Amino acid sequence: MILYGDSQSGNCYKIKLLFSLLNIEHQWVHVDILNGDSHTPAFLQKNPTGKIPLLELSDDQYLSESNAILNYLAAGSELYPQDTFQQALIQQWQFFEQYSHEPYIAVARFINKYQGMPDERKAEFYNKQDGGHKALHIMEQQLQTAPFLTGEQMTTADISLYGYTHVADEGGFDLKKYPAIKQWLLKIEEAPDYLAMED
Amino acid sequence: MILYGDSQSGNCYKIKLLFSLLNIEHQWVHVDILNGDSHTPAFLQKNPTGKIPLLELSDDQYLSESNAILNYLAAGSELYPQDTFQQALIQQWQFFEQYSHEPYIAVARFINKYQGMPDERKAEFYNKQDGGHKALHIMEQQLQTAPFLTGEQMTTADISLYGYTHVADEGGFDLKKYPAIKQWLLKIEEAPDYLAMED
Repeated sequence: MILYGDSQSGNCYKIKLLFSLLNIEHQWVHVDILNGDSHTPAFLQKNPTGKIPLLELSDDQYLSESNAILNYLAAGSELYPQDTFQQALIQQWQFFEQYSHEPYIAVARFINKYQGMPDERKAEFYNKQDGGHKALHIMEQQLQTAPFLTGEQMTTADISLYGYTHVADEGGFDLKKYPAIKQWLLKIEEAPDYLAMED
Repeated sequence: MILYGDSQSGNCYKIKLLFSLLNIEHQWVHVDILNGDSHTPAFLQKNPTGKIPLLELSDDQYLSESNAILNYLAAGSELYPQDTFQQALIQQWQFFEQYSHEPYIAVARFINKYQGMPDERKAEFYNKQDGGHKALHIMEQQLQTAPFLTGEQMTTADISLYGYTHVADEGGFDLKKYPAIKQWLLKIEEAPDYLAMED
């Protein structure tokens, strides 16, 4: 299988981390989004949304959306348990990630780290802070009751939220106020075959 | 089981439609978000995000996020097939819905229909149009190749996207340019036990 992605994108890194944790053989094809590589006619034919990561299983079988890819690749492993309610809880946290976490924390990080905080996006950067802290606060509450987001065991929900949470400081979010989140980050980093994000 | 929701919210209506299609017995508890009912201490204890819909399975078992609830309730039915790749494709479309469709189409609808297009949100309303049409264009492309979003059979992916697409005109989106979407809407509306959204 081929994964089209950019290791510096948190959404792509999630997949890279899972590949490592589960020792899944794959080919990684680098797509430079800042250079427009995900909007060439050839790429749009593979994924009309022009987004990465994209998983290619065969010439006519593709899967997009980082969290859908995670759950697909982890199916059958303990990172995505068989139990229907557990799977639903995992998805709950992943939809939370895409709607209430990523649009704040990942976007603030992008403006700060990749765009170098241009004047015309400063207001947007500051507007993202409240929503990001709200998301972190909800994670903190949950992680004070259990070691992982869905309970006693690490799942793809944790990998999803780890992606941008562990680099939230690059978006201006100080994690000092969130001790349970910091503990949780360490626990994930202790997993066998953990792989750090490229800088 | 209890569903906390507001039938006029597309995210809650998705669940109401699924309850009807699958004849699932339930209790519906109305939560008036415009009145702040989802931010009372009692509700925040059930769901710290303060969002509806929320499914209560027991005193200490809750599930939030509309699409996670749909997949949980439809598990075992033909609306959420067992096949791992099919489930991943369903989730792909649902993550697309939450990230690339709902923030444009549902928000534009909310500004227009529920807020009566106040001057201070007019610019935002118009800014939502491009993103909404981009999402509709991607759905149209897919629905020109297959009757439903993930192939030959209706799934929870279709219910997810139906929620706000069928009322997209209330957000200023004219569906005339999307003939395959219009056909698909009709197909869903022909399903046995289809239930219309309250006006």
